Amino acid sequence: MDQIPVRCSKVTQTRLIFPPDTNHLGTIFGGKVLAYIDEVAALTAMKHSNAIVVTASIDSVNFISTARVGEALTIEACVTKTGRTSMEVYVKVFADDLLSGEQKMTTESFLTMVAMDEEGRPKPVPHVIPETEEEKELNRTAAARKKQREEKAELRT
Amino acid sequence: MDQIPVRCSKVTQTRLIFPPDTNHLGTIFGGKVLAYIDEVAALTAMKHSNAIVVTASIDSVNFISTARVGEALTIEACVTKTGRTSMEVYVKVFADDLLSGEQKMTTESFLTMVAMDEEGRPKPVPHVIPETEEEKELNRTAAARKKQREEKAELRT
Amino acid sequence: MDQIPVRCSKVTQTRLIFPPDTNHLGTIFGGKVLAYIDEVAALTAMKHSNAIVVTASIDSVNFISTARVGEALTIEACVTKTGRTSMEVYVKVFADDLLSGEQKMTTESFLTMVAMDEEGRPKPVPHVIPETEEEKELNRTAAARKKQREEKAELRT
Amino acid sequence: MDQIPVRCSKVTQTRLIFPPDTNHLGTIFGGKVLAYIDEVAALTAMKHSNAIVVTASIDSVNFISTARVGEALTIEACVTKTGRTSMEVYVKVFADDLLSGEQKMTTESFLTMVAMDEEGRPKPVPHVIPETEEEKELNRTAAARKKQREEKAELRT
Amino acid sequence: MDQIPVRCSKVTQTRLIFPPDTNHLGTIFGGKVLAYIDEVAALTAMKHSNAIVVTASIDSVNFISTARVGEALTIEACVTKTGRTSMEVYVKVFADDLLSGEQKMTTESFLTMVAMDEEGRPKPVPHVIPETEEEKELNRTAAARKKQREEKAELRT
Amino acid sequence: MDQIPVRCSKVTQTRLIFPPDTNHLGTIFGGKVLAYIDEVAALTAMKHSNAIVVTASIDSVNFISTARVGEALTIEACVTKTGRTSMEVYVKVFADDLLSGEQKMTTESFLTMVAMDEEGRPKPVPHVIPETEEEKELNRTAAARKKQREEKAELRT
Ligand SMILES: CC(C)(COP(=O)(O)OP(=O)(O)OC[C@H]1O[C@@H](n2cnc3c(N)ncnc32)[C@H](O)[C@@H]1OP(=O)(O)O)[C@@H](O)C(=O)NCCC(=O)NCCS
Ligand SMILES: CC(C)(COP(=O)(O)OP(=O)(O)OC[C@H]1O[C@@H](n2cnc3c(N)ncnc32)[C@H](O)[C@@H]1OP(=O)(O)O)[C@@H](O)C(=O)NCCC(=O)NCCS
Ligand SMILES: CC(C)(COP(=O)(O)OP(=O)(O)OC[C@H]1O[C@@H](n2cnc3c(N)ncnc32)[C@H](O)[C@@H]1OP(=O)(O)O)[C@@H](O)C(=O)NCCC(=O)NCCS
Ligand SMILES: CC(C)(COP(=O)(O)OP(=O)(O)OC[C@H]1O[C@@H](n2cnc3c(N)ncnc32)[C@H](O)[C@@H]1OP(=O)(O)O)[C@@H](O)C(=O)NCCC(=O)NCCS
Repeated sequence: MDQIPVRCSKVTQTRLIFPPDTNHLGTIFGGKVLAYIDEVAALTAMKHSNAIVVTASIDSVNFISTARVGEALTIEACVTKTGRTSMEVYVKVFADDLLSGEQKMTTESFLTMVAMDEEGRPKPVPHVIPETEEEKELNRTAAARKKQREEKAELRT
Repeated sequence: MDQIPVRCSKVTQTRLIFPPDTNHLGTIFGGKVLAYIDEVAALTAMKHSNAIVVTASIDSVNFISTARVGEALTIEACVTKTGRTSMEVYVKVFADDLLSGEQKMTTESFLTMVAMDEEGRPKPVPHVIPETEEEKELNRTAAARKKQREEKAELRT
Repeated sequence: MDQIPVRCSKVTQTRLIFPPDTNHLGTIFGGKVLAYIDEVAALTAMKHSNAIVVTASIDSVNFISTARVGEALTIEACVTKTGRTSMEVYVKVFADDLLSGEQKMTTESFLTMVAMDEEGRPKPVPHVIPETEEEKELNRTAAARKKQREEKAELRT
Repeated sequence: MDQIPVRCSKVTQTRLIFPPDTNHLGTIFGGKVLAYIDEVAALTAMKHSNAIVVTASIDSVNFISTARVGEALTIEACVTKTGRTSMEVYVKVFADDLLSGEQKMTTESFLTMVAMDEEGRPKPVPHVIPETEEEKELNRTAAARKKQREEKAELRT
Repeated sequence: MDQIPVRCSKVTQTRLIFPPDTNHLGTIFGGKVLAYIDEVAALTAMKHSNAIVVTASIDSVNFISTARVGEALTIEACVTKTGRTSMEVYVKVFADDLLSGEQKMTTESFLTMVAMDEEGRPKPVPHVIPETEEEKELNRTAAARKKQREEKAELRT
Repeated sequence: MDQIPVRCSKVTQTRLIFPPDTNHLGTIFGGKVLAYIDEVAALTAMKHSNAIVVTASIDSVNFISTARVGEALTIEACVTKTGRTSMEVYVKVFADDLLSGEQKMTTESFLTMVAMDEEGRPKPVPHVIPETEEEKELNRTAAARKKQREEKAELRT
């Protein structure tokens, strides 16, 4: 199985916030941000695995600050760790107030994406190779996050 | 401040899964489900608080089973516990295969919604009164979920 | 052929009214309401018949009162009467002003949905069993509505 | 008050049928057709009245034949008769199979649109002048349709 | 190969400008206008060729004046000249301020559309026959536009 | 007036191609690509000018190769040259076949965006500073492109 550096599947998406994305106060719906996070995580995982992917889970998401109509939203994602058929993807979201030039962190999260073959069965993925310090840190801490997810899933059943 | 039973703000949304909601395999994007969850949670919180609301956070979401084009997705939400300005909302998602009549659980999650006044500042909400056994159980366990969220938020900073 | 109670295929859809659904005055387009009515009627008929359905007709629709951005629209539908391959579906629409808690009737109508097999030919549907008083009343009056529809269709040719 | 010929506010809209407009069988949702009918009727009424309009009612709609992905839908509308603040609009829908060149009638209906001032109150509209034989016929028969609508509305109350 | 008059494949699309089509100032995004131009050009070319078509190129587009929420946009297109498998399509866009009745030219452009068979290979199209003076003028000047396009394409390589 | 390097306002947008973006053959509509080009060009120009912008013109666009459902589209844009109130923006579009890892150039173009004040009047923009060789080349050749645009505009009048 191939070994692929994190940088090869990094994805960035900057988009305008349009009126239908926002509520009465002109601030973006959390659900829209979640949908963009999932789209960019999927693109990243598809790029890494050269396969169709489905979202197995998304970790909790805190919306630290809001984003408004006419601002730009930038979503960045990379693969942090690979299992046999699954990939952990880290996603960061920033909002740019284009009129003032100010940038704020909106949120961040981790998703687990699973590669699928054409019959819809999980399919092995290449290993990911972290290179920068941040990538290595995210890779090192992935096991702990995985354990936490499994404990939480057990609690529910 | 008023006291309002859980049942008064329960919301149900059944919708068809359309082709643009799905990937190559004909299964729904996780991000679409997250957007619907957020919409229904917001409706529930608005109904309870008679206020505009924003999403402060969503707990982790596991996609237990998939849903396909032409199936119906049913999203149900209720307020489980109220703080001063925040409400915890529980959301359950089912997929109905309309051709076979089979129903599967897709996912569930908890969101924290915050009521806002017209200037976009957090605003007090009425207390919620659980009545059924399930509502009481969800209300009792809310404090533990809140603690877990705060611990996790600290870890990140 | 099976006999299925009305309650088994009842569908409810509550949704937020978003800015793109509305005109200059901030009131919802009639066409949007009609599209939601058709979607919920189709879901109801699919649930009853476990088949794909098409809309054969919709009776006249009076928009009694309006609905605005930020309000919730609730669409409820049930099968009132079945023919060989067709189902009459009754749909009611309410608007909830979430900030005042006030609810208004927006409109109601009857649609005829026809079940289809995979080749796109009409296909027999199970009988519907009305149980409540309201369901029985809607079932009893269905024949008269059908007659009126047929007379009107003749007038046009 | 001005007198404006029917032809001055005629509107035509030809559009492609896209995959999200259609069901499993690749045929268009009735609700989509209804939404397009309402949009074109509104444009026609706005052109006639130079005002914002709302849909007061739509007469019953029979979907005579279906329309498929990749076909073109043509919606044509004109004002047939004016009241004080309301306009009756006639809408015809055709589907063109672009690969065979064949054209089929999909449906037709009458809508009542009401002109509104900026405060959302009904506002007088100019008289409409029918010129062609078809326009005169539609104008002549409008009173009978209005009577039928009023009788039906009474039946419901 | 058939000969088909220009008028047989003319297409008109009038549509309302909705809030999601517009920016902060309430004026339409250029990208939306370009998408509508491409849709109407495709319809025209499909009508002429009875084939699926793809856009090979669009000439430069100058947005002479703007169009606003609540105005109507009218897009008109016709085939001006045919090659073996390609068609040049001329598109004109007008904006109607429905409240004042005023009409402004928004833009115009020429697109080259190519007919495709079911395997996605270019496919011969019927000749177009210009009839009116304007059609003949557009047909006559097509060769010069084609030459200009070819020169520009060369410059880039 | 400030001087701002090209790199400060570069924007990248990678997005999945969804079924509603594509025709019968599963290839993307040219109009969709044009809409994405305009969105990313607008974001770039807004970032550079800290102002709302409108599209004054787009140069001719050749669609060199197609892009299909399930592929990723990457749109990259930068400001190449500034006038008093206008900015020339260069946009490049690539399609990534995520299953094979192959990347193809889809198209490229130049747009002129004009900065606007809150009343909708053109507003001065900061100078742009090209730094890399490619940026300097694009900056140097901008005057020739402007001349060509003006000649073409004259031809039409
Ligand atoms: C949510 C938000 C309003 C909180 O603002 P704040 O300045 O922290 O306000 P407060 O400290 O008064 O907190 C208000 C309530 O939110 C709760 N809260 C704040 N952050 C939270 C989080 N991440 N998770 C759960 N609850 C949270 C607080 O506990 C408090 O609840 P209480 O009044 O019931 O005790 C603010 O962070 C925000 O605007 N976030 C963006 C929301 C948004 O736009 N989401 C959509 C997509 S970005
Ligand atoms: C509805 C449709 C399938 C009926 O086809 P048909 O050849 O008339 O078929 P049948 O005569 O076997 O009729 C089937 C059933 O539809 C009913 N029906 C047909 N036209 C109807 C109408 N205008 N209103 C109400 N019911 C109608 C018949 O009464 C019959 O009911 P039954 O089986 O319960 O007795 C056909 O007209 C059609 O495909 N229309 C387009 C549907 C569509 O695509 N709608 C969406 C927008 S175009
Ligand atoms: C249509 C509406 C404005 C009528 O209000 P109203 O208080 O009844 O006003 P009026 O009695 O002055 O009637 C105004 C005109 O509408 C006509 N009208 C009212 N209800 C009608 C109906 N159901 N069908 C046809 N015409 C109707 C009246 O005959 C009158 O016509 P005229 O001036 O030519 O004589 C009002 O019912 C409304 O706002 N409905 C909701 C409209 C809407 O938002 N539709 C979209 C989706 S909900
Ligand atoms: C673009 C627009 C603002 C220019 O208005 P104007 O009255 O010509 O303004 P000016 O003469 O001051 O020109 C402003 C700048 O735009 C440039 N410009 C104008 N038309 C242009 C065109 N067709 N192509 C390229 N640049 C153009 C001018 O050269 C000038 O640049 P500079 O300030 O850097 O020297 C105006 O034509 C407009 O509003 N068009 C519609 C824009 C729009 O809404 N587009 C979206 C879809 S319709």
